[in-house]
Amino acid sequence: MPHPNDPKLRSFIDVAPDSHFPIQNLPYGVFSAKDGLAPRVGVAIGDYVLDLWQLAQDCRFDVVEPAVFAAPQLNPFMALGPKVWSSTRARISELLRHDHPELRDNENLRKRALVPMTDVKLHMPFAVSGYTDFYSSKEHATNVGVMFRGKDNALQPNWLHMPIGYNGRASTVVVSGTPVRRPRGQLKPPTAEVPSFGPCKRLDFELEMGVVVGQPSVMGEMLTEKQAEEMIFGFVILNDWSARDIQQWEYVPLGPFQAKVFATSISPWVVTRDALEPFRLHGPRQDPKPLPYLQQAQPNNYDLSLEVGLRAAPMNEAVNISRTNFKYMYWSSVQQLVHHAACGCAMNVGDLLGSGTISGPKKDQRGSLLEISWNGTEPVELAEGVKRSFLEDGDSLVMRGWCQGNGYRVGFGEVEGTILAVE
Amino acid sequence: MPHPNDPKLRSFIDVAPDSHFPIQNLPYGVFSAKDGLAPRVGVAIGDYVLDLWQLAQDCRFDVVEPAVFAAPQLNPFMALGPKVWSSTRARISELLRHDHPELRDNENLRKRALVPMTDVKLHMPFAVSGYTDFYSSKEHATNVGVMFRGKDNALQPNWLHMPIGYNGRASTVVVSGTPVRRPRGQLKPPTAEVPSFGPCKRLDFELEMGVVVGQPSVMGEMLTEKQAEEMIFGFVILNDWSARDIQQWEYVPLGPFQAKVFATSISPWVVTRDALEPFRLHGPRQDPKPLPYLQQAQPNNYDLSLEVGLRAAPMNEAVNISRTNFKYMYWSSVQQLVHHAACGCAMNVGDLLGSGTISGPKKDQRGSLLEISWNGTEPVELAEGVKRSFLEDGDSLVMRGWCQGNGYRVGFGEVEGTILAVE
Repeated sequence: MPHPNDPKLRSFIDVAPDSHFPIQNLPYGVFSAKDGLAPRVGVAIGDYVLDLWQLAQDCRFDVVEPAVFAAPQLNPFMALGPKVWSSTRARISELLRHDHPELRDNENLRKRALVPMTDVKLHMPFAVSGYTDFYSSKEHATNVGVMFRGKDNALQPNWLHMPIGYNGRASTVVVSGTPVRRPRGQLKPPTAEVPSFGPCKRLDFELEMGVVVGQPSVMGEMLTEKQAEEMIFGFVILNDWSARDIQQWEYVPLGPFQAKVFATSISPWVVTRDALEPFRLHGPRQDPKPLPYLQQAQPNNYDLSLEVGLRAAPMNEAVNISRTNFKYMYWSSVQQLVHHAACGCAMNVGDLLGSGTISGPKKDQRGSLLEISWNGTEPVELAEGVKRSFLEDGDSLVMRGWCQGNGYRVGFGEVEGTILAVE
Repeated sequence: MPHPNDPKLRSFIDVAPDSHFPIQNLPYGVFSAKDGLAPRVGVAIGDYVLDLWQLAQDCRFDVVEPAVFAAPQLNPFMALGPKVWSSTRARISELLRHDHPELRDNENLRKRALVPMTDVKLHMPFAVSGYTDFYSSKEHATNVGVMFRGKDNALQPNWLHMPIGYNGRASTVVVSGTPVRRPRGQLKPPTAEVPSFGPCKRLDFELEMGVVVGQPSVMGEMLTEKQAEEMIFGFVILNDWSARDIQQWEYVPLGPFQAKVFATSISPWVVTRDALEPFRLHGPRQDPKPLPYLQQAQPNNYDLSLEVGLRAAPMNEAVNISRTNFKYMYWSSVQQLVHHAACGCAMNVGDLLGSGTISGPKKDQRGSLLEISWNGTEPVELAEGVKRSFLEDGDSLVMRGWCQGNGYRVGFGEVEGTILAVE
């Protein structure tokens, strides 16, 4: 049987070369259709969603029970572990291959199991057990440091020694398409004597990738590089919405809180670690050499193109305001997970780890408006007469990401959010 | 029917005057007994646990289904809302009254429903949806500030304007009695050139109360004082274990992470807000006056005595190292919850909010070893030749708390944890 990552594989379903969902991808999500059935697990293939519950009901999987795919979240499937993830992906690949007749020639099953993407609603793909956000792009941390502390003290002394992170809020992680209400909070501009309470005036996005943890770890025990890698089920694109003015006033000494907990958006499709395997590469050279527990024997970064579009409220279409790549991250997702568990923290199925804002070395590769507008001093011109330093009500922000194969793309689709005014 | 808080109420079960569990309390927990049945919901009364599932099976509750009490967590019961919480408590009070024959004279039901406390194992009382930790004792924040920044800059400028808090880690909240493995992490004492990785050398406790949120709030919507109050199901004692040396090196700029996520211990009994009602009082005067969204029309603090015992490894019994009171908190639990939701953060059934370390105005009222030993400069003498600045392997830390009524105590029992050496 050919490997599911084989670039030569074709499906009996037509897939355009720039589609994010060729047979080499097979990302998992949770969808509902017009049939009135409850949300359940599906896989994206071209312009269709493959209904895994229908296939399981029809006894097309040896190992996975239909109930696992009838769940409105990926957690029960993820809990089955990496061997089942790989064998299930191989089986789905086989069922979709152009030269495999089992599903291709079974019109009845095909009609039940393949739902046009235009007919589905996509839901949160998994229940977020815990959400942790890191800060692992050296370019981003440096940009922010230069802005607020000057060039000479841009990076904090600890930054090069560990993946700095903090606990986020799981209850407000939402799926792409969910509108984001402008947060309110305490604001104290440097010119004000005392703080006031009101709508955030410096609302921003942060372009990140999110790791979806699919296996638990034991409280009190550390992880090796290999163990951490094998716990990673897949990745999503993540928008860590940020209220810069709320953050500025609240964050000393315990870190960001209200500035971040109002919303975090993720893409609806979880692209598996297996599907990203062909796109692995080494990250930037780490100097100083990390402490032994953080050292890596293998390439744990990915060549993954990312772009950010912004449609300001008066515009009809989004324009690109950033093009960057996940490969620039200084600390890899595996290092983040190893560090997270190093003190004995138990990881759970459904944990989500944000990479931190992904900025590249060039000016047009910055992953937040804070950096793009250089703290509001250089507003970006989106169209004739339309400028933005931060997000305004009605603005829509969209992120896209994909790995470019030879003639195909392993993509994430998009994560979109539109800003609603304070009620 | 008499009010369940009536000081004159007596149960047909004998309850000692210094017991934490008189008929005026009726705290909820999750227990298992020698009968081999799965963990389920019970109420503490004197030296017994009242098995609510047995009572529900016997049709003793009108509103609550047996399945709710058969759950291994309080979340389904909490989800029923404050009216059911109050009516259920009133019904349990009635069933336990000395002058109500229904349970008292039904020997068969009594034998099934009353389990001696010595025969039960107590479990985590609820599934923690999200854990947030505040920093709301002015005395604690001042002590820490004086130690690290000097007397003149002890309180950060934002501290008097809002309840400062940060997201904690829900996956490592454990019940009293769970041993705590000494965490490892990156350490960089001021004398070291570079960090090293190893066991924490400055392991500490923090005496806190925890609010158990029993009702959800809507993402994007603020809460009034009254709405926030009614979402609070009850309280636990909470030990926010802290690795001071890990925290010192990692916490700038995103706050504590590995220093806190390795373990948080809570008491097994959730004392309801209803039971604490007679002990409400006004907290300290707030100056400057809080912003309108944080203003309080009613007393939201509690007169709740707390004590901390430490049994160092070579000792047979714990000695008290702190006696303080929850009433000293500058920001109340209601203000914390209002602030938490103010930016639009959705609250969930099972959210846990730590109050922050509870220190009082006097030296013997400090809620952490960091303060008691003044950052290690004044070790506390526990017994002849036994001194402690921070916790050592084998040490056992126990916290107790209660409200003193006229002839009875509404108590929390205890939260205990013993330090295990790094493996």
